[in-house]
Amino acid sequence: MAMKVRAAVAHRQKVPLTIETLDLDGPRAGEVLVELKASGLCHSDLSLFDGSRDWTDYPLLPGHEGAGVVLECGAGVTSVKPGDHVIPVAIPECGECPACRSTVTNLCDHYFQPWPRRPFSLDGRPVRAFCELGTFASHIVVRETQVCRIRKDVPLETVCCLACAGATGIGAAAYTARVAPGTTVVVFGLGGIGTNVVDGARICGAARIIGVDTNTAREASSRLAGVTDFINPRQVDDVVGHIREITGGGADYSFECVGSAELWRQAVECTRIGWGMAVMVGVPPSVETVAFRPRSILEGRRIMGSYLGNVKTRTELPQLVEWFVEGKLSLDQLVTHRISLDQINSGFDLLKQGSALRSVIVY
Amino acid sequence: MAMKVRAAVAHRQKVPLTIETLDLDGPRAGEVLVELKASGLCHSDLSLFDGSRDWTDYPLLPGHEGAGVVLECGAGVTSVKPGDHVIPVAIPECGECPACRSTVTNLCDHYFQPWPRRPFSLDGRPVRAFCELGTFASHIVVRETQVCRIRKDVPLETVCCLACAGATGIGAAAYTARVAPGTTVVVFGLGGIGTNVVDGARICGAARIIGVDTNTAREASSRLAGVTDFINPRQVDDVVGHIREITGGGADYSFECVGSAELWRQAVECTRIGWGMAVMVGVPPSVETVAFRPRSILEGRRIMGSYLGNVKTRTELPQLVEWFVEGKLSLDQLVTHRISLDQINSGFDLLKQGSALRSVIVY
Repeated sequence: MAMKVRAAVAHRQKVPLTIETLDLDGPRAGEVLVELKASGLCHSDLSLFDGSRDWTDYPLLPGHEGAGVVLECGAGVTSVKPGDHVIPVAIPECGECPACRSTVTNLCDHYFQPWPRRPFSLDGRPVRAFCELGTFASHIVVRETQVCRIRKDVPLETVCCLACAGATGIGAAAYTARVAPGTTVVVFGLGGIGTNVVDGARICGAARIIGVDTNTAREASSRLAGVTDFINPRQVDDVVGHIREITGGGADYSFECVGSAELWRQAVECTRIGWGMAVMVGVPPSVETVAFRPRSILEGRRIMGSYLGNVKTRTELPQLVEWFVEGKLSLDQLVTHRISLDQINSGFDLLKQGSALRSVIVY
Repeated sequence: MAMKVRAAVAHRQKVPLTIETLDLDGPRAGEVLVELKASGLCHSDLSLFDGSRDWTDYPLLPGHEGAGVVLECGAGVTSVKPGDHVIPVAIPECGECPACRSTVTNLCDHYFQPWPRRPFSLDGRPVRAFCELGTFASHIVVRETQVCRIRKDVPLETVCCLACAGATGIGAAAYTARVAPGTTVVVFGLGGIGTNVVDGARICGAARIIGVDTNTAREASSRLAGVTDFINPRQVDDVVGHIREITGGGADYSFECVGSAELWRQAVECTRIGWGMAVMVGVPPSVETVAFRPRSILEGRRIMGSYLGNVKTRTELPQLVEWFVEGKLSLDQLVTHRISLDQINSGFDLLKQGSALRSVIVY
């Protein structure tokens, strides 16, 4: 049941992706063949071949933010059937491990166990699929535990972004911090992820959302999403002091969406003594450690973090789709470019330049 | 209404305390005169005059772990009356500020506002009382918001330790982490505070309590308090790896009770992905920052801290007294020496040598 699939493959560091025809083995027991309709381009994909991360497992098929339609199910698959619309997800949800049975984390034990299977191959040589997905191909074979069934009346070329950027940002507010109504929130970095955090905080009922970004152009768009106060760090001497002052002592929650060790520190310091919660969303690149003042922790602040916003990928992600249908998400504004698979390297160039919030491949 | 009071006073860094006769002004409106029956000796007191902390406000009356009887109340005091048994507390509980009205923190706003009043003086010169208490004197004048009324049938020379060490340790488990029944807990450092953490975790229903201490002599006493597994870091290559292994992936909670930046890091690393909570109890001396691996936070762990275990000092501390009455606390074993005020410098010598868990002055 093998098929030929066009895909964008990384062969080594610091060279562009090349469009190849791969062999894709059909779904085995517990696996699903998905025809992708769209895939977003994410910095995490770029980091696998631009030299910023120490990745060596090539040939590699990146891509982890797709959406599509189930074509075929292997034996024993019961939760989806051909024709279902699905979002393949990076973190499995087996439903049975201690993490899945808990109400507090989305980090299914299976996420940390290597999946030895390699459905893709190139000239007989196995190809690693990033996150066991590889959505830079028109078709993928994944485990049943890595597909989230969603309603059929939503545009796949938009909701694909919920698989990573959307879940990460919206979930940070709604499923990691569980922002309480009436509270004050600070968001550092108002790119795609940060805007999703703003959406999540607004949906949770935050009374005040303070956005921090050096790019003044982001003020208007972030206000549309729900930012009530915009701070450009280049225009104030002391961002932490300024936030403490305008909030009367510090914010209830802060979210770091840039990936800077210095901003991780500021995110902690700008929250209120006693219950301030700083949620780390951005990943500091090539940083061994991040440093905090002990006293800031001892004064009752909380430091948290999550992958994919702590959204359980099969049972909770559909709630984000509902919020999209209800018009509560900024996804439409965030998808700035739609491209073909052949244009993928140009899409990553836009991402590197910061001129695209999100580019989405439409298959 | 001034009176003469014997007290142990610090005049500058690195010289022993001297026993002096101070003048104590009587209670004004909202204030209470307490006759202390006992006061514990704490490392925090020692750090004010042994050179380990940059303290310059002398003459100083240390001491913040007392218990006594109300002698006289100033105008407007309604919550206590003469004859009441009280534990004076370092953190006020005004009951009205946002922190006091919240259910999540004990850090009353008034704790951070300087109290200009100096009830004690020496030859007409005001004497600073540590934590606005100064329990190394037989009598103190404090704000009504800084006394916790307790039942009269408990020994004041024992429950005085609840004011600081007891609240800090028991509270870290019961009021900061709110340890859930059936969980696994790691306690780094099994001195007085660590043993109190063990008590708190056991009271909360922890199924397994792993104690870590380089002092093998502490194994037996900590097992009495509830430690189920004792680890001597000098006898295992990799404490974090060992804890992860015996817990099948990491503990649910960890408590750092030593005050070491390296142990703060280990406390985070030894907890489970997804929900592991590391509670910082020990204060690293003269350390600007503590460092953590970003990934450890992003994997869903939580870093918390608190003062006095996040126990609300007037409304929740009486619960700790109840636990003492019910025989659930190890306080009796922890008070290793009872001394007179004149012996205070010897008491601190024992503390420095590590040969006393807790010395208590009995007035």
